[in-house]
Amino acid sequence: MKRVLITGAGGFVGARLARHLLAHPPAPWGGAPALTLTDQYPLPADLAADPRVTAVIGPLGDQAALFASGFDAVFHLASAVSGECELDFELGLRSNLDGTRILLEGLRQAGNQPTVVFSSSIAVYGPDPGLTMPAVVDEDTLPAPQTSYGTHKLMCEYLIADYTRKGFIDGRSARLMTVAVRPGKPNGAASSFFSGIIREPLAGVEAVCPVDPSTAHPIASPQSTVLSLVGLMTAPRDVLKRRLAVTLPAVNVTVAQMLDALERVAGPAVRARVRFEHDARLAGIVANWPRAAKATTATDVLGFPGDASFDAIIQQYIDDMRLAGQTATALKGLA
Amino acid sequence: MKRVLITGAGGFVGARLARHLLAHPPAPWGGAPALTLTDQYPLPADLAADPRVTAVIGPLGDQAALFASGFDAVFHLASAVSGECELDFELGLRSNLDGTRILLEGLRQAGNQPTVVFSSSIAVYGPDPGLTMPAVVDEDTLPAPQTSYGTHKLMCEYLIADYTRKGFIDGRSARLMTVAVRPGKPNGAASSFFSGIIREPLAGVEAVCPVDPSTAHPIASPQSTVLSLVGLMTAPRDVLKRRLAVTLPAVNVTVAQMLDALERVAGPAVRARVRFEHDARLAGIVANWPRAAKATTATDVLGFPGDASFDAIIQQYIDDMRLAGQTATALKGLA
Repeated sequence: MKRVLITGAGGFVGARLARHLLAHPPAPWGGAPALTLTDQYPLPADLAADPRVTAVIGPLGDQAALFASGFDAVFHLASAVSGECELDFELGLRSNLDGTRILLEGLRQAGNQPTVVFSSSIAVYGPDPGLTMPAVVDEDTLPAPQTSYGTHKLMCEYLIADYTRKGFIDGRSARLMTVAVRPGKPNGAASSFFSGIIREPLAGVEAVCPVDPSTAHPIASPQSTVLSLVGLMTAPRDVLKRRLAVTLPAVNVTVAQMLDALERVAGPAVRARVRFEHDARLAGIVANWPRAAKATTATDVLGFPGDASFDAIIQQYIDDMRLAGQTATALKGLA
Repeated sequence: MKRVLITGAGGFVGARLARHLLAHPPAPWGGAPALTLTDQYPLPADLAADPRVTAVIGPLGDQAALFASGFDAVFHLASAVSGECELDFELGLRSNLDGTRILLEGLRQAGNQPTVVFSSSIAVYGPDPGLTMPAVVDEDTLPAPQTSYGTHKLMCEYLIADYTRKGFIDGRSARLMTVAVRPGKPNGAASSFFSGIIREPLAGVEAVCPVDPSTAHPIASPQSTVLSLVGLMTAPRDVLKRRLAVTLPAVNVTVAQMLDALERVAGPAVRARVRFEHDARLAGIVANWPRAAKATTATDVLGFPGDASFDAIIQQYIDDMRLAGQTATALKGLA
């Protein structure tokens, strides 16, 4: 039985990934894994209660011995988010850079060359007046992060590439797109509103969009993101070659197109709950982000499916809420 | 009086830089600086005896309080070299990554936004089968380091860019070319032979070249390197924009062209002391290095002069040895 670790497993993507691995273990694993889930916050109840799950709750920096205990596969998702890291510089260094170093050192000590999928981010890209950010970023685009979050993610990509080159791990970095629609409350990520302008109107609540309707951005659904992470974990090493940072598939979409999709899926009354109120600080951050991304390796070489459309991304959220029995709250705004 | 720090000041480039700053302080500094020189090894005697110099000898990691003491300008040259870092993975992380972090944190604590020139390296470049390494690398080339040394240098470039973006320092990274001709003994750098095949024949000693005559590489003299570092320190911020990693000027030259230059400058008897003996391990490392580099910002925008030719680089070494009174040893092989 494969020993598999997920860091940040209490988070939105981490918990979904854990459930997916238990229900649909990748074929090469030959069955459901022994799953160790670590997070600084408690796990969702279903995962905490699952007999196949070992939960380790506490700061990443305290888990050096755990990391050295001989996992076969590791998904490293634990991370402070972009907004937090801009406000608290030391938190970003500690959580996202030092935390990853402690993990990698533990895996090196274990000596069994585990396969590691690292959740990097589209935030590694940014405008650079020495160049011009291309209209569509891809894996050949020179990274120029404009946040501490993106800086630390990029540094970790290169560190993971070097641990891989040295044979300590078999590492793969996934540049995650903005994941939407996220359930629950807004979080500290500057990209949080991309979920908010869909989630709140569906719940019958008014939402404020802080950027112009023409703002474009690559977005992926949680399910597409999970499938990409699993696909990257089981991708043959020789297909990846030395190209360790892979841009994940996304739907490239403007805010106006997102709201058109919301109207198609949920009706004009839902869309009407979104109003525009320009936030200069936030719009300034978003202006430094790529407007579109191309997933060359993930789509053309590895064949990851991605999302069919932004309509499908909204529908996935609605279906998830129905499955979770949250129609009376999360979908209160649907006729 | 400007308070200026050089780390790695006991090294070949560091000591030359220190002497240069004392003899020819940059005009904007309004006179010779108060110079603090730190190194893990003792300084050369002339610098240790200079009343304008404060020497701090010890590991970089022990100097956190020094770094926070309010320097106006910092040249960060301290570094374990490439060969050492490949042999001792932890040394590379400790010296080149953690050492730089301790320096940057000290400078941030000081709170006076010092100007920082960081010595990065051409080792950030490498072949990447997802791309092809271009025939001539420049600042638009996607870095793909193939050593731990190059990995850590690149990580520090991005960290310095983020400290700069946040306003903690005014940082500039210089990608140093291979510096030759180095005096003294071979060191642990895989590029050491580029100096050896000039230095040893001039001293009347046979030299072994471990790579083919067609091997090409960008090389800069120590004086050109020092002038570039000082030029980058005083370059206007707005000219650099956000482009913080600058490739320094170099002479792009093959080993055969280097030996032709040696013959022109020192005669056929000197050249005849070089014999070729292929070293597969070393040639394999060198094959991953750029064959030529273009210093777009340094040459076209900042106007750094660079070296006129490889002949001039050899002549600089001969002149240096004559000035140092080492004709009987270092230039013993000259007629």
